Parts: sequence; C-alpha cells; structure tokens
Amino acid sequence: MSLINTKLEKDNIYIIELNNPKKRNPLSLELIKSLQNEFDDIKKNKQIKVVIIQSTGPSFSAGHDLTEVRKSAKSKIKLLNLFKTCSKMMLSIRYLPQPVIACVDGIAAAAGCQLVASCDLAFASKNSYFQTPGVNIGLFCSTPMVAISRKISSKDMMYMLLSGEKISALEAEKIKLINKVFLKKALKKEVINIASKITKKSNQSIKIGKLAFYNQLDMSIEKAYEYTSQVMTKNMGFNDAKEGIEAFIEKRSPNWKN
Amino acid sequence: MSLINTKLEKDNIYIIELNNPKKRNPLSLELIKSLQNEFDDIKKNKQIKVVIIQSTGPSFSAGHDLTEVRKSAKSKIKLLNLFKTCSKMMLSIRYLPQPVIACVDGIAAAAGCQLVASCDLAFASKNSYFQTPGVNIGLFCSTPMVAISRKISSKDMMYMLLSGEKISALEAEKIKLINKVFLKKALKKEVINIASKITKKSNQSIKIGKLAFYNQLDMSIEKAYEYTSQVMTKNMGFNDAKEGIEAFIEKRSPNWKN
Amino acid sequence: MSLINTKLEKDNIYIIELNNPKKRNPLSLELIKSLQNEFDDIKKNKQIKVVIIQSTGPSFSAGHDLTEVRKSAKSKIKLLNLFKTCSKMMLSIRYLPQPVIACVDGIAAAAGCQLVASCDLAFASKNSYFQTPGVNIGLFCSTPMVAISRKISSKDMMYMLLSGEKISALEAEKIKLINKVFLKKALKKEVINIASKITKKSNQSIKIGKLAFYNQLDMSIEKAYEYTSQVMTKNMGFNDAKEGIEAFIEKRSPNWKN
Repeated sequence: MSLINTKLEKDNIYIIELNNPKKRNPLSLELIKSLQNEFDDIKKNKQIKVVIIQSTGPSFSAGHDLTEVRKSAKSKIKLLNLFKTCSKMMLSIRYLPQPVIACVDGIAAAAGCQLVASCDLAFASKNSYFQTPGVNIGLFCSTPMVAISRKISSKDMMYMLLSGEKISALEAEKIKLINKVFLKKALKKEVINIASKITKKSNQSIKIGKLAFYNQLDMSIEKAYEYTSQVMTKNMGFNDAKEGIEAFIEKRSPNWKN
Repeated sequence: MSLINTKLEKDNIYIIELNNPKKRNPLSLELIKSLQNEFDDIKKNKQIKVVIIQSTGPSFSAGHDLTEVRKSAKSKIKLLNLFKTCSKMMLSIRYLPQPVIACVDGIAAAAGCQLVASCDLAFASKNSYFQTPGVNIGLFCSTPMVAISRKISSKDMMYMLLSGEKISALEAEKIKLINKVFLKKALKKEVINIASKITKKSNQSIKIGKLAFYNQLDMSIEKAYEYTSQVMTKNMGFNDAKEGIEAFIEKRSPNWKN
Repeated sequence: MSLINTKLEKDNIYIIELNNPKKRNPLSLELIKSLQNEFDDIKKNKQIKVVIIQSTGPSFSAGHDLTEVRKSAKSKIKLLNLFKTCSKMMLSIRYLPQPVIACVDGIAAAAGCQLVASCDLAFASKNSYFQTPGVNIGLFCSTPMVAISRKISSKDMMYMLLSGEKISALEAEKIKLINKVFLKKALKKEVINIASKITKKSNQSIKIGKLAFYNQLDMSIEKAYEYTSQVMTKNMGFNDAKEGIEAFIEKRSPNWKN
C-alpha cells in the first residue's frame, strides 16, 4: 500500500492524500521522499494548476515517525539527513510554481504543523488542532518553527513551543496559521471551490508571481522593489497579461491560452 | 484640470486629494510624478506636520492606468521605468519625515492598495474595500505585494494575491492592513482629529523617530539596538526633548519651539 | 532598600519583582544593572527553569528614569552608555536559556513596554495598559520600538509611536504584544500555573530550542533550515530526547534526569 494517494481532479486540481491513517500519517523518510517526488513531477507538469494536500482518516499528520527517529539516532549523519531531506521537501512547496493548499482535518503536529505552515494557503475543519509538542518528548520543534514562525507572531509561536499544547482550528485562524475554518462536512468541498476559483485566474501570472512573492520577502524593501519591477515588466510580456488587459478594457472575460 | 488637489489645513495638516474620480484615480505616470513632486516639496517644508492622502469621488485608487500600461508594453524600458518610478514614489512616503495617513473611502486596488500599505497609518470608511486583482488580468500584483506583505501575514497576503478577491474594510482592519474603520460620514473628521493630535506632539522627535523606525526594521536586532541607541542620544540633544522632559518633571504641558 | 526582590518559588521558578513602586519602577541605570546581574547569574544557574518578571505596587514599569536621563544629557557618552546598557539587558532576556515571562499589572510604558516585548511570553491584568509615550516628551521611543516592532504589526506600532496613547491590555492581546489577559486577582496565580507547566517539560530541550528560535528568526529561510537541522540532530543526542521518545513509544510519562 502506498503512503499517498494522488488524483487529478476537474479543473486540473491535483490532490495529494496522505494515506497512512493508522500511524497518523507520520512524516517518515519514505513519505518525505514520496512527497518530494510528487513536487518534482508537479513542477514540470504544465497541466496541474493547483495542488491540495489532504489526508484519509482522522489525522492530518502527527509529525516525524518517532520509531524511525529513534532508530536513526545512532547515526548523526542519518539523523541530519532526515531533517535536511524534510526541510528540502518543505521548501519545495514554497518554490513550486503552482499554489499549494493544505486541507486539514484532524491533528497537525510538529512537522505536520510545519507542512501546513509551508503551504501557500491552509484551511481546516473545526475539529482540527495544531501543536508543536516537541518539549513533551525532549525534542524541541526546531525545524517546524522555521516555517511556523514566518507565519505567526513570536509571542504566539513561543507559547506553542514552550507549552507544547494543542491549539484549536479557530485559534489557528485567529493567529494566522491557517486562513479559515470550515465545518468538517463542508471542508473538502469548500477547499475544492477555492482551488477551482484559482484555476480560473491567469495561471501564467500566478507562476511568476508566487515565486516572486517568496523571493522578495527576505529582501530589503528597496531590493524587493527593484526585483519586482523587473518581474512586472517580464510578466507584461506574457500572452495572459496582454489578453487580460485587453479583455478588461473591452469589458469582457479573458480567454487564457495557457 | 489637475489630477490632485492640495491644501494646508489648520494645525499644518497637508491634504493631498486624488482628483480623477471618473477614471477611479488611476496611478498613471502623470499622477505618480505629481505625488513624487508633492513628497519632494513636503520633505523640505518645515511647516507641514502631517500629510493626509484622500480622494474625491467614490474610489480611492484602482491602481495603475491599464490603458497606459498597455501602451507602454511595447517598450520594456518604458514599462520598467513606470514600475520603478511608482516604487520610488511609494518609498518616498516611507522616507518622508512627516507621518503620512491614508484616508480611504471606496476601492483601493492593486497599486492603490499598495499606496495604503505604504502610508504610516491608514483609516477607511466601512464601505471601502481592498484588493490585489492582478491575477484577474494576467498581471500578478508583484510590486504592490512588496508594501502589503510587509504589513500583513503571509497567509492573508497569499489569499488576496491568488484569489484576486475584494476584502472588506473590516477584514482589512482585522488583518492589520489598516488601523481602523469609521462610518463613511465620520471618516474625514476622525482622520483630521487623529492627524491634529499628532501635530500637538513633538514633531522634531517624530521626524527623527519615523526615519529610524523604518531603518531599524530591516536590521538584525543587535544592529537595530546599536543604531537606535545613537538615535536616542541624538534626539536628547534636541530642544524638544529638553523642554519635554523639563515639562514632564515640572508637571506642566510642554511648549514646543519647533 | 533594593530595587528588586527575588525568590526561588516551587518548581524552580525564579521570580524577579520590580520594587520601586513610588517611582513606578523606572528603568534607571541602577535597576538595569541589577537586572543584568540577575540574568548573568540565571544564565549559569542550572536549577532555575523559568523566570517571571513582575512588580510590587500599582505599576509594572514607566520606562527610563527621566530625572536621570536629564542629568545624563550633558554627556553624550553617558547617555549613549545608558541606552546601550539597557539594550544589552533587553537582549540578555532573548539569549537567556530559560524562558522569561512578563507578568504585567499596571502601566508598562516606553522601556517598560520594551521589557514586556523582550520577554518570551507576556500576560497582563485587565487593568494594565501599554504605551510608547516618547512623542509626548520630545524623546521618540526609538530603542523600545526595536523590541515591540518585532512582535506587532507596523501599522499598530506606528499608531502607538505617533499617538503616544495608552492601549488597553485587551487591545495589547489582540495585537499580539502580550499572550493573554487575566483578571487582576487571578493574574499571578495563572502565570505561576503556566510557568509551572513549562517546568514539567524537557528543560534541556527548551534551552537549546529557545536559543535556536531567536537565532533562526533573522536568517533567510534556507539558512534557518540548515541551522535548525543541525540543532535537531544535536538535540537528539540529549538524554531527554532519548527518554522522551522512549516514553512516548512505551506510552508512559517521561522521567527527565536534568
């Protein structure tokens, strides 16, 4: 049995479903590599417009596979490799040209919470919860906090890290870890709707824009403006921009060719 | 007819009113240059204490002038010049010694939304809305996101960028794009009141402090402390600081000389 | 009489109580140095697990001692030394291996507000308020804003700095300057409870994790992942991690040896 299911939905929405419910979808090296392979393929796939990461079963992901971590602990090289491979996979989401949406139903803890933070958008069912419980097992959530602390305020992050407590989906929405909470029974449909709306936009411009977004975030504001002025100029050379502006001026719907 | 009206109000509050209501105050090269000229003059003007940017008519600003952008599209140099000139103008607000307040009544979209984000403070009427709709016309809001992403969380920013949807003034307040929402009929008076209160403060210290604020934001915390320790020391050499502290200790109102 | 009281509470919680109520606990050079000495000692003390900073009397801290600032104003070297000594003390909280919690009951203004922002967690009574009132006395809160602007959004920070107005504890919770508001009569007990819970976690992992948290914040995301992957690997070599994971797999409570 595979650790993930994938399918291409209508509107070229690609769904990755974590599928190891009994173990609560741990981010084992095998799962990390499967996700990395997916992202490497998606990157080259011009058909896919939006990616959704969801799960079967009652959990989203409980984080690293602790049995595996314990086994790897004998070799520093193995351990370091595990964390680096995981970090690289998380960064692949950031640098994927397509938007990636986390659709969370159940627990998202440690590296599972990092996965949510790493996605461009995140939605969750009301019964979901989020947690960085490393302090409970003597292994501080140091790699997860890299992604999470870039989305939420330091005081909220510190509370999660030091208390190790669960926070509810509603609280996660309030602190901006996720975009919005839906009822459990509505979640998947709502997320598909949002994804579907995005597929109707100019995906050519989304691809250049998403990359530019994360690139400019780490720059000084002056450099960020210099860089994005170049990006806007390049973007204007695209067919979509010409068609989109044409359509706007002519008060009609654009007819994307990409 | 000029694209902007300006007037010096009581308490040395300077009002810039965008005045091209039929076209929804597009940030054409001409308007950008007019604003740049204003900011260049205000910078040297020691009388002006606070600047308010507002608009006539039902819109604040709908962003770049798409007819102009389409025309410029034939020349990459022209286009790049447009975006760079606009970025420079936005940065001028940041580096203006006087506080700049956006007073938004109506739509603030794309570069219009960037203008709001670039101001030090922003207030809006309840019926206003905010939007980065570039994905709808194939031209991702890459330069606007530079200013906006430095004020709001990444998840909220991404939703605005990818969906292209309008967000309400109340939502904009919640995500910290603006400071506060007022009823439409109260907006201008409330903003004047806030501006007026600021003019009563030590404007000498505001000038050195505002500049220091943005400068320190991009530094490591250690460098930021080293830099602002110098700024505080310099500030203490000002007449206002001497008078202000004197007045505080003597339990009387300060009598600013600047 | 000493400017601070200290005591080691149950669960190895160390309490520093600002104790100059008549003067509203001003951060005079003497108090700053006392706090610095405390932090230098705590850093080397392996018994102390969590630090709480609170106050006697009706104020938390009103900021620098203005009488002293005025006296120092004659010598630029003295002034610069005051601000640098204060900044260093604030940074010591950040780099202290133990979590530091601000327990605020009353006013926290200027450098007093900076002290709250510098702590890892902060809780306040409902009647507390927060303020950066420098503009009222001609001395912009330039060093306080270094800490505060790294916790709250720029628009909120600018409003505090330019208006000099008090914000309520509930507002401070909303803008993420503090974690949570409690009723005045419940505050100290609630904060002790939170601190106590943290002492039950793996303090060995908290020590490595807290340091890593602030270090990674200023890095690019790529460097942050490289760095924290090393930190996680090192953390896995600790007794606590071995015991914690062991306990988790065996479904029992961990038995920390540190």
